[in-house]
Amino acid sequence: MKFTLKPIGVVHSPFKKTEDIDSKKYSDSGGFDTVQGELEIFPEFEEGLKDINGFSHLIVLFIFHKSEGYSLHTQPLLDDTLRGVFSTRSPHRPNPVGMTIVKVLERKENRITVSGIDMIEDTPILDIKPYTSRDQKAEVKLGWLESKMKK
Amino acid sequence: MKFTLKPIGVVHSPFKKTEDIDSKKYSDSGGFDTVQGELEIFPEFEEGLKDINGFSHLIVLFIFHKSEGYSLHTQPLLDDTLRGVFSTRSPHRPNPVGMTIVKVLERKENRITVSGIDMIEDTPILDIKPYTSRDQKAEVKLGWLESKMKK
Repeated sequence: MKFTLKPIGVVHSPFKKTEDIDSKKYSDSGGFDTVQGELEIFPEFEEGLKDINGFSHLIVLFIFHKSEGYSLHTQPLLDDTLRGVFSTRSPHRPNPVGMTIVKVLERKENRITVSGIDMIEDTPILDIKPYTSRDQKAEVKLGWLESKMKK
Repeated sequence: MKFTLKPIGVVHSPFKKTEDIDSKKYSDSGGFDTVQGELEIFPEFEEGLKDINGFSHLIVLFIFHKSEGYSLHTQPLLDDTLRGVFSTRSPHRPNPVGMTIVKVLERKENRITVSGIDMIEDTPILDIKPYTSRDQKAEVKLGWLESKMKK
């Protein structure tokens, strides 16, 4: 069983390549809050953005397009121990799909200016969803990340 | 440009088909909190679950496998107005990928018992990621959903 997906748009980012991202930002829950970028939705999907105004945050699903291959044990940026890939946000995963929640600043036609960008330029976007109160979880425990992350 | 993804596991759910889900639950941020189910990860990916213990919540990406086709304007369960598909969580999307955050109850080998299940039986799982404080957003505005949802 396989599934074929196609991009609905691309990310525009101040990070032109993976190495441009300061990995220390990942240890801070607000580390990317000031990083602005743009979600460009292809014109044929623009109508799907109707009613997006009014949502403060969007869930962006995207392809880690520079990721090649994966291992089930991976060394995270924030740790020096091999961790199971599903307990990390590593781009090197069996299905190289990423998820980032961004804050909406402005929408003009098929382009949404956002903050919270941790993707690189030209990242293919698979989907945009509204972030709702169902996605706000309390009493969150962070496993191996607990001591590595500023809340 | 296309991307081919493959399931890493399946969801076991008390909902055997879409019609089994009480759609009123979607209007309550805790509506599915008591719905238990299981994430069964295929044995060849089990090693990727290392270190998942200790995380209280997991992000599950999955395929809406019963969804056929989509429209850029869709009528949400919680509204009687056509909305842009990207401002809804409708399963009928250009890329039929869903995202649900579940709470971990217990892991035994390749099976994780969780609550917060809103998927149906046999839903193909694409990815599991740890939910972290980067995913907890404050001051969230819900657009057209604002008046439809209990926070």
